Amino acid sequence: METIAVYPGSFDPVTNGHIDLIQRSSARFDKVVVAILRNASKTPLFSVEERREMLTAATRGFENVAIDDFSGLLVDFAEQVGASVIIRGIRAISDYEYELQMALMNRRLSSRVETVFMLPAESYSFLSSKLIKEIACHGGAIGGLVPEDVERRLKDKFTR
Amino acid sequence: METIAVYPGSFDPVTNGHIDLIQRSSARFDKVVVAILRNASKTPLFSVEERREMLTAATRGFENVAIDDFSGLLVDFAEQVGASVIIRGIRAISDYEYELQMALMNRRLSSRVETVFMLPAESYSFLSSKLIKEIACHGGAIGGLVPEDVERRLKDKFTR
Amino acid sequence: METIAVYPGSFDPVTNGHIDLIQRSSARFDKVVVAILRNASKTPLFSVEERREMLTAATRGFENVAIDDFSGLLVDFAEQVGASVIIRGIRAISDYEYELQMALMNRRLSSRVETVFMLPAESYSFLSSKLIKEIACHGGAIGGLVPEDVERRLKDKFTR
Amino acid sequence: METIAVYPGSFDPVTNGHIDLIQRSSARFDKVVVAILRNASKTPLFSVEERREMLTAATRGFENVAIDDFSGLLVDFAEQVGASVIIRGIRAISDYEYELQMALMNRRLSSRVETVFMLPAESYSFLSSKLIKEIACHGGAIGGLVPEDVERRLKDKFTR
Amino acid sequence: METIAVYPGSFDPVTNGHIDLIQRSSARFDKVVVAILRNASKTPLFSVEERREMLTAATRGFENVAIDDFSGLLVDFAEQVGASVIIRGIRAISDYEYELQMALMNRRLSSRVETVFMLPAESYSFLSSKLIKEIACHGGAIGGLVPEDVERRLKDKFTR
Amino acid sequence: METIAVYPGSFDPVTNGHIDLIQRSSARFDKVVVAILRNASKTPLFSVEERREMLTAATRGFENVAIDDFSGLLVDFAEQVGASVIIRGIRAISDYEYELQMALMNRRLSSRVETVFMLPAESYSFLSSKLIKEIACHGGAIGGLVPEDVERRLKDKFTR
Repeated sequence: METIAVYPGSFDPVTNGHIDLIQRSSARFDKVVVAILRNASKTPLFSVEERREMLTAATRGFENVAIDDFSGLLVDFAEQVGASVIIRGIRAISDYEYELQMALMNRRLSSRVETVFMLPAESYSFLSSKLIKEIACHGGAIGGLVPEDVERRLKDKFTR
Repeated sequence: METIAVYPGSFDPVTNGHIDLIQRSSARFDKVVVAILRNASKTPLFSVEERREMLTAATRGFENVAIDDFSGLLVDFAEQVGASVIIRGIRAISDYEYELQMALMNRRLSSRVETVFMLPAESYSFLSSKLIKEIACHGGAIGGLVPEDVERRLKDKFTR
Repeated sequence: METIAVYPGSFDPVTNGHIDLIQRSSARFDKVVVAILRNASKTPLFSVEERREMLTAATRGFENVAIDDFSGLLVDFAEQVGASVIIRGIRAISDYEYELQMALMNRRLSSRVETVFMLPAESYSFLSSKLIKEIACHGGAIGGLVPEDVERRLKDKFTR
Repeated sequence: METIAVYPGSFDPVTNGHIDLIQRSSARFDKVVVAILRNASKTPLFSVEERREMLTAATRGFENVAIDDFSGLLVDFAEQVGASVIIRGIRAISDYEYELQMALMNRRLSSRVETVFMLPAESYSFLSSKLIKEIACHGGAIGGLVPEDVERRLKDKFTR
Repeated sequence: METIAVYPGSFDPVTNGHIDLIQRSSARFDKVVVAILRNASKTPLFSVEERREMLTAATRGFENVAIDDFSGLLVDFAEQVGASVIIRGIRAISDYEYELQMALMNRRLSSRVETVFMLPAESYSFLSSKLIKEIACHGGAIGGLVPEDVERRLKDKFTR
Repeated sequence: METIAVYPGSFDPVTNGHIDLIQRSSARFDKVVVAILRNASKTPLFSVEERREMLTAATRGFENVAIDDFSGLLVDFAEQVGASVIIRGIRAISDYEYELQMALMNRRLSSRVETVFMLPAESYSFLSSKLIKEIACHGGAIGGLVPEDVERRLKDKFTR
């Protein structure tokens, strides 16, 4: 049995919490496709191309991890890459509520793809891309919370 | 990569919610070991032997599912059978809270085993072995909520 | 249309939070049946007879409220008294979780009875029969939290 | 006693989850007024007039259900139509939190109107107008989740 | 030991729930600094200057309470005024989730400042500045929910 | 202003999560009284005397921390030692719900004592005395989760 998993998200930018989940997933599924959501309605800090570069650099060590991007319905993308698993990290209850709703809807849209929830390391339980951007914007210390390459790029964005 | 998953529980008795999760897991992991917890401190309705029989009957159709039982720490059992995944179903927030606590503790006890959460079909979201026993005890209708064999055994227990 | 509502509980003893809900319900449904659960497995502080007396005294002012007691399945009792509504108070999230599970199960057991949730006044949001007994047991002040008759009976129980 | 209930919402568009709640309410209250919120600050997909038409079509079978729309405070509208009950559906905890806050505030604004919570069928527990629009926008299948008339109108909106 | 506490917020406008927390804090910490967040990205109803005036008027009776405003990271402001405590009110679970995330992040940003949570009086548990503005905007009664000075200013804003 | 805080609990046994909270509190309040609840109805693993010894050893470094024990109402004990603050740690939502209920009731029982919530370090967020006993009972590794003295005593208890 070959099980392919999709790990979708905005990754604007990728944090160490994301990397932690990618590592845990890559050790348990045959292939993990990290899928960047191209969302026309939001104005991201980093372009899809930049996010791809940061994810590629940060997952260099994992052989069975690929980076891709998608728009439209997640289940359509999952079926297209042959995935039967969607991976979602849960940190907090409010996460979980929304995730539950999406997982049930996605199951209805495609019975071939199943959502599976995993926990990031508790030292990253408070991390989110949004919070990272807020702190970086005010010059706060984000070392250890994002890959070094991401830290550098964030400083560049906010000191220009 | 061969990924073995453990699905632990009391299964006193197994419900269609459990079967639903076993089915979803067996399609995504190479092997699923359903592990009955022998808990000396609780007085179950069904013996470990009876619970084994009901689970064996109910999972006959799944080739990569095995039934086992354990006492002691779950992570010790998981390592013993070579599992790198623990499967837990989450229905409600209160479930999730306790499950989160256990998952973080288990991760600390063994970094080789990872807890993964899955959702039962929403038509089973209100199901629990405890509730089933309560209803069966008062002669309520439980058809469609447990395997037929379990329904028969529950009637036997409560009409004696 | 005549709508009969059942308000089930242990009422061991009735609190002002319960009375508050009974009042709100009696103004909106044609008849409200307060139903004391006879639960053989628990050892209550007050007998079913005592609980009936306290509820009768406390609801004297409401003409369309009746006091009854039941064992077995709640939906069976509801159908027996012709009720199409079960009333439940919700104070906290943990309440709500359990209540949701019960409501979905009861709906499955009988489609003729619907659970409806109402909020007690926020000044009673922290009240529970269990907490009242704990405080009364240690001689704490419970005036204003239970009817006067109940306050007197609690003092009697704990000073003997 | 004649009890009139108001069921407020955006209904942009009405889903089968809404219809399910309207049906349950109409069997328990003498009259149910479905009240479309005219919200100047949001840009809806469907106009108030279109939402009215869809609701009218979908509730044709219920004799004691009327469709109306309002702006301003909900309790003012409720008092105006003589309602003593506000009906709200709760699917998830996060719903419930906000609903609780609103119910307590509304009670303070008018003691004559009481909020009552009901559960949609669990097969609709993941449904929301927002999610429906997202899926329809990407061409996903929404049959069985909204009335057929609504499905047709959604397709029209997104294929133009 | 002299312990200084910071109580941060938007206070747009201050409500009686905020005042309640300020009172409880001022009786337990040596000094309480109420800190208005200057947030460039949001368009407040009241200017920072107006919010300062309302807070100053409402806290006149508390000798150890000072009003200030800040932008940037909260922990930087806290360290600047010598505070070792951040006070946050929690009303609902959803509050708590976000607050928890912020508290853990703030602790990481500065180990010298600790977040401490307190409960407003339950009669204010449903209050928020946002809700107050919504009600005032529609001419609803807000007496008893905000200081009289704030009530007057809200009427001014919305009747112009 | 001298502020005395009470930190109540069973401490059966004390964990590093408790110690973490004691340390944070002792740096912010003038005096912290750690108060062991003598609860006749529960059968603890360690006697009150043993729990006192473990707490005394573990808090040796904190000059303004005292160990005491109590039965009856917590607010009565708090008033007796002159405390105006009750400290409670919150790890999870379910904790918080119960804690909220207790805090509101305690406030009603005594307006002079205020409950204040603090977060343990996130590396202890999954810790509880109950879980520690379960793991120790099965021979699992608890180093780093409890003080060394407690680890030794737990081993003694379970290997006899």
